[in-house]
Amino acid sequence: MTQNIYDDPTFFTGYSQLPRSVDGLDAAPEWPSLQALLPDLRNARIVDLGCGFGWFCRWARQQGAGQVLGVDVSGNMLAQARAKTADTAITYLQADLEQLDLAAGSADLVYSSLAFHYLENLERLLTKVYRALVPGGRLVFSVEHPLLTAPSHPGWQTESDGRKTWPIDSYLIEGPRRTNWLAEGVIKQHRTTGSYLNLLLRSGFTFSHLEEWGPTNAQIAANPLLAEERQRPTFMLMAARR
Amino acid sequence: MTQNIYDDPTFFTGYSQLPRSVDGLDAAPEWPSLQALLPDLRNARIVDLGCGFGWFCRWARQQGAGQVLGVDVSGNMLAQARAKTADTAITYLQADLEQLDLAAGSADLVYSSLAFHYLENLERLLTKVYRALVPGGRLVFSVEHPLLTAPSHPGWQTESDGRKTWPIDSYLIEGPRRTNWLAEGVIKQHRTTGSYLNLLLRSGFTFSHLEEWGPTNAQIAANPLLAEERQRPTFMLMAARR
Repeated sequence: MTQNIYDDPTFFTGYSQLPRSVDGLDAAPEWPSLQALLPDLRNARIVDLGCGFGWFCRWARQQGAGQVLGVDVSGNMLAQARAKTADTAITYLQADLEQLDLAAGSADLVYSSLAFHYLENLERLLTKVYRALVPGGRLVFSVEHPLLTAPSHPGWQTESDGRKTWPIDSYLIEGPRRTNWLAEGVIKQHRTTGSYLNLLLRSGFTFSHLEEWGPTNAQIAANPLLAEERQRPTFMLMAARR
Repeated sequence: MTQNIYDDPTFFTGYSQLPRSVDGLDAAPEWPSLQALLPDLRNARIVDLGCGFGWFCRWARQQGAGQVLGVDVSGNMLAQARAKTADTAITYLQADLEQLDLAAGSADLVYSSLAFHYLENLERLLTKVYRALVPGGRLVFSVEHPLLTAPSHPGWQTESDGRKTWPIDSYLIEGPRRTNWLAEGVIKQHRTTGSYLNLLLRSGFTFSHLEEWGPTNAQIAANPLLAEERQRPTFMLMAARR
């Protein structure tokens, strides 16, 4: 069972104040790249795994999606998601993604932003997602990049010549990492890029695209802090099809 | 044009003394994993890109391969490869992989060990390889892992608590890296995992497997130095099919 850190009051208060929580998709620097991986959404039946405040669900409907199912483990987040829309084509479901069942052939697109790295058993979910997709259906998701999740003691370091580096260890040692991000004791699961890929292939998917996300020059001009993403990326985006 | 460092006398002398040069495939710790990605070689027509001393070419013939073409930029290495066999089913060709042409539909397997990270223009070669393969044909290759090639100043570091770490920078800044390995000024090309993958997909390949190689417990017991591979892998193995 996945740790439900989003219903921890300290974490939830911190998370609620992040730009992407307050201002939605456009406040997430990787969103344009993730959006570019999406198929045509018109009339599509969509599942959003880890939908949070429902920003993507609402946006997908604006793009003409037929039905959207948003799933999240956090009751706090779903309460806010439900309060933000009266759209009856959006359904919100509180569920642990590790336990979730989805009807076979019920989706044209399964989407997930920054949720899979919390799951201990990702293979079970990917098998369910494959079954839930129609032939030709797409899976598009982002996770925290393995370079971010690998180190036993994550953090930037300044070298004697002024360069910022990100010391890596434990890269091939997969499993839980206990970090302090917004709250103490947040558990994330480190997986290598190879493991994400091979889990998809084993689940039956055909792999379409891998993006280790970096900012554009325009994004760095607007937010110079993003430059460090080129030294060590935070986000990994993947697309696959049934 | 690729730097032909293998014909530099200092480099060649050093390279010739590496265990994998003296003792062949079994002296390369990643070989069992690379071998596991290979299809049945019986009667297969094989191209080995960066064949070096020809260890793989000769081994493939022992497995029943029909015809083997070994290609390398290094005249020094091909001279030794030719001296080691009288097998007329093995052909050696001296060529720059960036300029190479291969006949369409002429190969069942294209294999390459630790050569592609020297190439500035990999996409051209992959397009040629795709065309050279029969439908269903395989490409199996290894490269230096992007975590090895990324840093501007590569090297292990010992933290105050005794942990060994590998400080990363410049991960998303692709292009040449000048390193001193066996000789000064060896030029390697850093690419992200995403770039390798997306180049394959753009060239028409279906992706089959990605392995960020790590040692088994038995390998570490036999050679304790290999343990650091689990902190930061040296090798990345990929398999794709036409």
